[in-house]
Amino acid sequence: MKLYTYRAADGAERLAAELHNRLYDLEQFGLHYADMNALIADSGVFLRTQLDPTGKQPLAEPVTLCAPIPHPQQDVLCLGINYTAHAEEASRFNGEAFGGERPKAIYFSKRVHTASGYGDPIPSYPGLVDSLDYECELGVILGKDAFCVQPEQVADYIFGYTIVNDVSARNLQTAHKQWYFGKSLDGFTPCGPCILTADEVPFPPALDIRCTVNGELRQNSNTSYLIHGIAEIISELSRGMTLCTGTIIATGTPSGVGMGMQPPRFLKPGDSVVCEIEGIGALHNTVE
Amino acid sequence: MKLYTYRAADGAERLAAELHNRLYDLEQFGLHYADMNALIADSGVFLRTQLDPTGKQPLAEPVTLCAPIPHPQQDVLCLGINYTAHAEEASRFNGEAFGGERPKAIYFSKRVHTASGYGDPIPSYPGLVDSLDYECELGVILGKDAFCVQPEQVADYIFGYTIVNDVSARNLQTAHKQWYFGKSLDGFTPCGPCILTADEVPFPPALDIRCTVNGELRQNSNTSYLIHGIAEIISELSRGMTLCTGTIIATGTPSGVGMGMQPPRFLKPGDSVVCEIEGIGALHNTVE
Repeated sequence: MKLYTYRAADGAERLAAELHNRLYDLEQFGLHYADMNALIADSGVFLRTQLDPTGKQPLAEPVTLCAPIPHPQQDVLCLGINYTAHAEEASRFNGEAFGGERPKAIYFSKRVHTASGYGDPIPSYPGLVDSLDYECELGVILGKDAFCVQPEQVADYIFGYTIVNDVSARNLQTAHKQWYFGKSLDGFTPCGPCILTADEVPFPPALDIRCTVNGELRQNSNTSYLIHGIAEIISELSRGMTLCTGTIIATGTPSGVGMGMQPPRFLKPGDSVVCEIEGIGALHNTVE
Repeated sequence: MKLYTYRAADGAERLAAELHNRLYDLEQFGLHYADMNALIADSGVFLRTQLDPTGKQPLAEPVTLCAPIPHPQQDVLCLGINYTAHAEEASRFNGEAFGGERPKAIYFSKRVHTASGYGDPIPSYPGLVDSLDYECELGVILGKDAFCVQPEQVADYIFGYTIVNDVSARNLQTAHKQWYFGKSLDGFTPCGPCILTADEVPFPPALDIRCTVNGELRQNSNTSYLIHGIAEIISELSRGMTLCTGTIIATGTPSGVGMGMQPPRFLKPGDSVVCEIEGIGALHNTVE
């Protein structure tokens, strides 16, 4: 199933499911969740519920989408340098910041004040950011608290998948040594368009992932090429961290980001960025 | 004023203020806040309220303290390498991870599932962590949302101060390149014992800060020696990030951590760690 958060005519954020290619507000099925976090917290019940659209009224198009989880309860947990070809391009751009040996996964986090949705602008911060970049990533969303989970159990903890554009200010990311600030500006976490529930995808997911800028194909890979796979990541982190229900893990980006080009080509106002993952959909955002 | 979260006999977390050296539950003054986050969100009203203990019943001693904010609404934002002498010792321990030029502040974050309070154990994670370390730090708590705040306005945004022990697993912090995982294990964020409200301290605060391990003085400095001061930090971050009400910023640790000793002396089960800051108090925790 594909789940959405949308903005209703009265401005409220509401939940919807896609059924036979139309969106239906979940209230029509007697499902009264305050938001997507509440739905995920109740996922054991929700995922067993049958949604029959017969006799229900689909939402009038066009629907204004929000991020599926507009207000994540914790910062987004991210993987750095997790596709081999991206490791090469990042090291070429800045060996000190991105190069060197890394037998272990690189974990960092991204502050999310409010996650942006489909169609929301990506702010460019003139005067602060001179090297704005995109990173199309598979986002994994946990359906229950994970602590000391073995790799072979990880699939049971996953609620679903979304697309995360891990927007990055390369100048801040490198100047401040740790990547946090350059990843955490307001508007730097577009997500969506939906959550694809985990039951729709064999585990681990092997999905085509691509990104275009102004229609030009920039990233084109498959999530099967992750260096550190989802089972390994969640199992390793959970050895010491409780990964709470609703946690979003952005699993890293393939090669083809702006800093990897020769010469680098960063985003500028007016650029249209489309992140796509097979089975989930396409996330469009324009730089302003 | 000093504000506390304590655990009542029924297990509930409740709020208290210290008045004439005794703790009083805030409910006695007709103040019904669900938790410290709610109090801070209402700080404009709360800080103008006079609390007169005459005729009120202080809490029976001993009081079981929690972290002042047991459930931070976002991860703790941290400064790395923000006292000069600590920069030297950290670089000596691991030049690749901690050395090099750094004209800019280093920002990272620390996942906080639940902040530990006074007296809570610090878990040692045998088999996962081989180099457990302490970092006594001044924690700054924001009283309102900050975005594009000028340095000279920063003082108006501070609700108060606490002590943060930025417990660190040096092996994870360095092996995974970015520091996040080694900082974010469950139980790695003891805070407390209280929040000292900002009106009690001239800005910027110049407070003695020290840490002892089993009674041996390890860290001994003053918060006036921060390389990047509180006004600079908050102003810089707020140029692109909305720092929300209740945000905790751990401002970095002075020299004297275990990895800085020759040879390094890391924490082991049974060690008693006391972090103290002038005017705030002392935060005791024992490694288990």
